[in-house]
Amino acid sequence: MSLPLHRLHSTGWLHSARLKPRHFSTSFSRFANRAVVYTNNGSPQSVLSVVSYPSLPAPPPQTVNVRYLLSPINPADINVVEGVYPAKPSRVTLQDNADSVFVGGNEGLAEVTSIGDGVANIKVGEWVVTGKQQCGTWRSGANLDTKDVIKVPKNVSEVAAATITVNPATAYNMLADFTDLKPGDWVIQNGANSAVGQAVIQIAASRGLHSINFVRNREGVDALKEQLKGLGATHVATYDDLADKAFRDTVKAWTGGKPIRLALNCVSGPATTNMARHLGPDAHLVSYGAMSKQPLSLPTSLFIFKNLKSVGFWQSRWYSQNSKDDRETLMKTLVELISTGKLKEPEHEIITVAAGQSDEDATRNLRYILTRMAEGQYGKKVLLRLEGE
Amino acid sequence: MSLPLHRLHSTGWLHSARLKPRHFSTSFSRFANRAVVYTNNGSPQSVLSVVSYPSLPAPPPQTVNVRYLLSPINPADINVVEGVYPAKPSRVTLQDNADSVFVGGNEGLAEVTSIGDGVANIKVGEWVVTGKQQCGTWRSGANLDTKDVIKVPKNVSEVAAATITVNPATAYNMLADFTDLKPGDWVIQNGANSAVGQAVIQIAASRGLHSINFVRNREGVDALKEQLKGLGATHVATYDDLADKAFRDTVKAWTGGKPIRLALNCVSGPATTNMARHLGPDAHLVSYGAMSKQPLSLPTSLFIFKNLKSVGFWQSRWYSQNSKDDRETLMKTLVELISTGKLKEPEHEIITVAAGQSDEDATRNLRYILTRMAEGQYGKKVLLRLEGE
Repeated sequence: MSLPLHRLHSTGWLHSARLKPRHFSTSFSRFANRAVVYTNNGSPQSVLSVVSYPSLPAPPPQTVNVRYLLSPINPADINVVEGVYPAKPSRVTLQDNADSVFVGGNEGLAEVTSIGDGVANIKVGEWVVTGKQQCGTWRSGANLDTKDVIKVPKNVSEVAAATITVNPATAYNMLADFTDLKPGDWVIQNGANSAVGQAVIQIAASRGLHSINFVRNREGVDALKEQLKGLGATHVATYDDLADKAFRDTVKAWTGGKPIRLALNCVSGPATTNMARHLGPDAHLVSYGAMSKQPLSLPTSLFIFKNLKSVGFWQSRWYSQNSKDDRETLMKTLVELISTGKLKEPEHEIITVAAGQSDEDATRNLRYILTRMAEGQYGKKVLLRLEGE
Repeated sequence: MSLPLHRLHSTGWLHSARLKPRHFSTSFSRFANRAVVYTNNGSPQSVLSVVSYPSLPAPPPQTVNVRYLLSPINPADINVVEGVYPAKPSRVTLQDNADSVFVGGNEGLAEVTSIGDGVANIKVGEWVVTGKQQCGTWRSGANLDTKDVIKVPKNVSEVAAATITVNPATAYNMLADFTDLKPGDWVIQNGANSAVGQAVIQIAASRGLHSINFVRNREGVDALKEQLKGLGATHVATYDDLADKAFRDTVKAWTGGKPIRLALNCVSGPATTNMARHLGPDAHLVSYGAMSKQPLSLPTSLFIFKNLKSVGFWQSRWYSQNSKDDRETLMKTLVELISTGKLKEPEHEIITVAAGQSDEDATRNLRYILTRMAEGQYGKKVLLRLEGE
């Protein structure tokens, strides 16, 4: 199989499927309800399958039928499938007399297609995302408890809405929950070109906050710096700069000596130790990732004498600890940022599993794409569109 | 000079001075007001001197004259003299036309000897300690602003009162300020045989908390374990135990699987990394020292997925951020613990600078003792008694 996947575009998979009409089923109804499932943890390229199931029943009371429009394949989703992520999905039975399975995916945009008895405040046609974690979003449709859904205003793109619950939410909450920042204050972060990092830059700028952003030195780092500045980054520098003691004077010149009270970390390792040294008294260092795969190592004196607080942020915990009203307020706030152009949707590719494609073909193609993702061939957000009935 | 300092007892220094009557001054009035001072940072054995000054003037309005009864020589005090501690004392002028100096010492018990105009709520004869940091307690007397003094009830020993503001206060506040612990809950700590560690054991026991206490493996570790258990430690183990993965089961058996939500650290380095792994969700790791001189290195996943919060505690900051009422309440609480036998005064040695000893002799003896302390010859708390008028 030699699909031109290095040039995958928004209909790449569908296109590749069309190249192989022999795999088409003659009966569309067979694929009325499909899901990407696995029965045991393992490498996604080995354990994930696209499986067709009978159509969903009508929604029971206090539930809604939804049709998933777009569901991202996030790095954490891969870890969940591998079984190395702390959050575990529950097994579900999608067909009578069939073995229970796990459905992949944690994030996704769905449209309400019908509502059960007793459901208030949700109408057919509205967009929803799920506040319950690991409920399995890589499927064409589902019945969801109303308490687990969060409405999303429809005045943004499907891509923006489908990618709103994890990365922009993480960025927004990390900027809001730990330090009381006023316009003109500074925030410092590493992994600044990650999806969350880019959202941090934009949300910080929208609040009048200055940001100092660190990225790994690389080919084309100057272009990356310009790109991030285009998003609103005040300054962009590299981990190499951070390792230079003289860089301290640079940061002081940038801030005019104003203490920095919030640092966001998705890297850990020595670069983060160096970043923490730029923090002023009573600062928070908020970690949400560890791309270096190294621990977070900090001088104890920063804790004792500078009152540094090192904490973690996990958006999944935020959803589990905040009310439905708070969740919907967060969605409205993010949609407002997006619809007013202050927060851009991510660069992305959409992988479509066409309704007419056989489970076997769809599985083969999905595994091929996952293999390429594992090899780091995708710099963009990959979203899954599972066409159903 | 070969003083029998390895057998120093509570009057050791006075005793040694008496062996050398040729150093006695003939005029006691010359020693009416003495202080241990330095003009530049450096090794305490080189830069500290005992100097006699004119008697104190009558206390100005809103101040009190005090006579220091006992002032500990704490490890941090040595670091302050060396200039490597974040807290810096201010220079003071103790004599007209003399150069300004630093007075050593941060902790000490004083008795009020006279009061200035406008002073309310403090009477002659009452005991006070100082809430202001680095105000110089290694002196026979001082005029103190009333806002800087904290009254201490007199129903404990002088030693207990003189050592109350740093170590027992640190232990008490670390157990109170971060995690809401109920009787039956667990606290875990390293450096358990330090002065703070021993206070933690006793205060935890007084509150019905269970403690798991780690110490360095050493000759006589079994005796040390028994000693700490005698103070109220629930369990005592070593850093070697912590490095053993199977030890996890031991801890689980001890706690019955109840999550541990507070860890206290004065060591850092790998032993603390290992200790943190025993914490349950939403725990605090509170650092107040780093005896290993290694950084605090923690897996980022503990922050993100277990919501670990790594923070520092510095009693100096506590005093600067809490009201006079809160400070006095803390003293009353600690005095209550001591007077009811729940918190023991530390093992100690008292070094007396006799009123009759010359400055030269007193300086020579003090430097000798500081040299021995730097060599680690004192396992006990050393307190200074500067006899004045």
